[in-house]
Amino acid sequence: MSQIINFRQLAELYRSELLDRVIPFWINKSQDTEFGGYFTCLDRDGSVYDTDKFIWLQGREVWMFSKLYNTVEPRQEWLDAAIQGAEFLRKYGHDGNLNWYFALDREGHPLVEPYNIFSYTFATIAFGQLSIALRKAPLSSPEGDTSVLSSVLKTIEAPSGAVGGAASLSDLYASIAKRTFDIVLSKTDNPKGRWSKASPGARAMKTFDLPMILCNVALEIEPILTSEAPSGAVGGATTFNIQGFIDDCLHEVMDVFYRPELGLIVEALGKDGNLVDCFDGRKLNPGHAIEAMWFVMDLGKRLGRPELIQKAVGICLQEVEYGWDKEFGGIFYFMDRLGKPRHELEWDQKLWWVHLETLISLIKGYQLTGDERCLTWFQRVHDYTWSHFRDPDYPEWYGYLNRQGEVLLPLKGGKWKGCFHVPRGLLNVWKILEAIQNS
Amino acid sequence: MSQIINFRQLAELYRSELLDRVIPFWINKSQDTEFGGYFTCLDRDGSVYDTDKFIWLQGREVWMFSKLYNTVEPRQEWLDAAIQGAEFLRKYGHDGNLNWYFALDREGHPLVEPYNIFSYTFATIAFGQLSIALRKAPLSSPEGDTSVLSSVLKTIEAPSGAVGGAASLSDLYASIAKRTFDIVLSKTDNPKGRWSKASPGARAMKTFDLPMILCNVALEIEPILTSEAPSGAVGGATTFNIQGFIDDCLHEVMDVFYRPELGLIVEALGKDGNLVDCFDGRKLNPGHAIEAMWFVMDLGKRLGRPELIQKAVGICLQEVEYGWDKEFGGIFYFMDRLGKPRHELEWDQKLWWVHLETLISLIKGYQLTGDERCLTWFQRVHDYTWSHFRDPDYPEWYGYLNRQGEVLLPLKGGKWKGCFHVPRGLLNVWKILEAIQNS
Repeated sequence: MSQIINFRQLAELYRSELLDRVIPFWINKSQDTEFGGYFTCLDRDGSVYDTDKFIWLQGREVWMFSKLYNTVEPRQEWLDAAIQGAEFLRKYGHDGNLNWYFALDREGHPLVEPYNIFSYTFATIAFGQLSIALRKAPLSSPEGDTSVLSSVLKTIEAPSGAVGGAASLSDLYASIAKRTFDIVLSKTDNPKGRWSKASPGARAMKTFDLPMILCNVALEIEPILTSEAPSGAVGGATTFNIQGFIDDCLHEVMDVFYRPELGLIVEALGKDGNLVDCFDGRKLNPGHAIEAMWFVMDLGKRLGRPELIQKAVGICLQEVEYGWDKEFGGIFYFMDRLGKPRHELEWDQKLWWVHLETLISLIKGYQLTGDERCLTWFQRVHDYTWSHFRDPDYPEWYGYLNRQGEVLLPLKGGKWKGCFHVPRGLLNVWKILEAIQNS
Repeated sequence: MSQIINFRQLAELYRSELLDRVIPFWINKSQDTEFGGYFTCLDRDGSVYDTDKFIWLQGREVWMFSKLYNTVEPRQEWLDAAIQGAEFLRKYGHDGNLNWYFALDREGHPLVEPYNIFSYTFATIAFGQLSIALRKAPLSSPEGDTSVLSSVLKTIEAPSGAVGGAASLSDLYASIAKRTFDIVLSKTDNPKGRWSKASPGARAMKTFDLPMILCNVALEIEPILTSEAPSGAVGGATTFNIQGFIDDCLHEVMDVFYRPELGLIVEALGKDGNLVDCFDGRKLNPGHAIEAMWFVMDLGKRLGRPELIQKAVGICLQEVEYGWDKEFGGIFYFMDRLGKPRHELEWDQKLWWVHLETLISLIKGYQLTGDERCLTWFQRVHDYTWSHFRDPDYPEWYGYLNRQGEVLLPLKGGKWKGCFHVPRGLLNVWKILEAIQNS
């Protein structure tokens, strides 16, 4: 099987799609040059159809540009795009105490309260990744420099005692990341806080999304937490036990939400860790489970635990098998572990992020274990994804297909789809294919 | 057109479907004889697939059985089914102060807080309609009577000074209806209360669903409010200006949410009554608009205002034309008034309630105005509805079809579909067809 895949050619396909089509789309179409931040409600051709700004997607786009700067090459254009989004977030995205709203209007006025913990987690990885980028950026702005970085440096006040220039901006952003991460930690037992609609004393549930995302946040925040704080200005979680935190996240994902008796990960459990037979407790989200597995593989690499990687690859393959639509192809959005009807009316739709995350998990699984089943599935999911989600006529990809694989919504971005899963997927798969080719 | 419709035969079709198939399904399959109340999560054949109890649907089923008792014939079976559901609601459905939860577990423990005003409106019409039924019921229970009514009468304490027997239970339920209605009125400016996620000072919106439902509640509560209170026990809204209330509801629906420049009703507006270009402000829900039009026609009859009826019929026809899927038939669930992409992934699906409400509005519009366009559309929607939603093999109808008209979920009941729109639609259309035939 592996013999017939030309890894070099495939890597180039992903690279070119990312750098020649997808990233230019977001650079050119999403930046709000008037009020700052990003438009994400972009129609098929990139025209803006709504100007509200959703904090999840603002943070994710900052992260994406920063990640490109850090892993592809230090293009000023990417750094500038990240900084302009970060400044909008820093000024308007929170209530002054780093409680991150869910949505703002175009100008930055809050629309929706900070009810959603993932607004915080994506702010954490955004400011963390950007602070790393800024450590590599030029330390001072030469006269006549017209970059966003240069103009921001002229306006911000350096934290007291910090060195000046980009390094001080890096420290400021690192501090925002750390302090936001602290708030995330304080909310893990009751993520919805006062916006929870659960009756006190009701059947208490916990959901998979939080430990799953925290597996990713852990690796993002680690270099920020462990870097030398240049001054007291960067306070917060410096004494934090990151190793214990990673162990806790892994335990929740791999020992609690993964159910060996099902061979699957469930979306919600009783607080006591038991399966519950109710709508929430029967819900499966194969895309979530599969995405989590590449976070776990990354943690397995970080910790030097090959058995953890093997287990994650095994679960990933089980989830792809289970979630694959044998009739029309593609992976279902929601399923029921007892085969009962769901109330999510979109249950049978095919979503872009599910398929891009699956591509990452499968190719990473192949890279780390050599399991040929990963490659077989990768090729099948690759074929489905590229032939159904990619728009041959305009850049960026469709997000929402019906069960049959037809385009349900023509949009390239919206309230939930931004500059994240498509470029992150393309970047990861490109880099892994390149590494396989070179190994 | 009207010549080729055999109204008598069609009336019989609706009557028989209602009384021979749909109502027996709910009587036999939904009643929880162990803990009281109703199961509504019923699979294709009526088997229970989830035991949680949703207050919207508990209230609506009480209403439905009471309405049948009041308008078809006084069958003890229907009265008993209504009373057993009402007793479950009375004991467990609220917090002791008639704040109605959203969901309970099977035994009646609260699961979801009273965040949703429609839990209150459906409790209002449930207890109101049942209190009317009980006025007609036998005043005392003879020895050896094993009905639910009889056993409930033995347990409840008659309100002080009230007459005994069914009349006292009627008073008790009327009091619950009135006091709940008072709470609804107190919440109309801020229906979500502390569960609202809107930031203070954010773009303030109001939604169509509330004035729409209140148009229906108005006619349901009027006979309760205007009946002679037999004692001080039935307190509350006795001095309430129902005429002013109806005028206010009609104004909101017909002058504020109906936009002549669009020829359509919008789902949300700025608090100031202006159109807003954001996701909420662009949303159209043709089923809501069409359903509201038969509420308005009923109010037009009640007020003796034929011009109001004419206007409602005109809007109904515009909405049906606009909402009809020219490619696959059926009426879309959600649309965007500017044709922009929606974020509701179920936007193009065909839902049972939309089509049943449309049948009511069209046949009522024909009955009241003789407009032949109503009859033409009625026949088209009738053909689509009966051929797509009705299950020939098991009683009750499917609720959710994809755009192409294929069954999306096999369920007959769930979290949002209960004993309400199918039987209410069949009952209304049957009775109207009968009246047309006899006129």
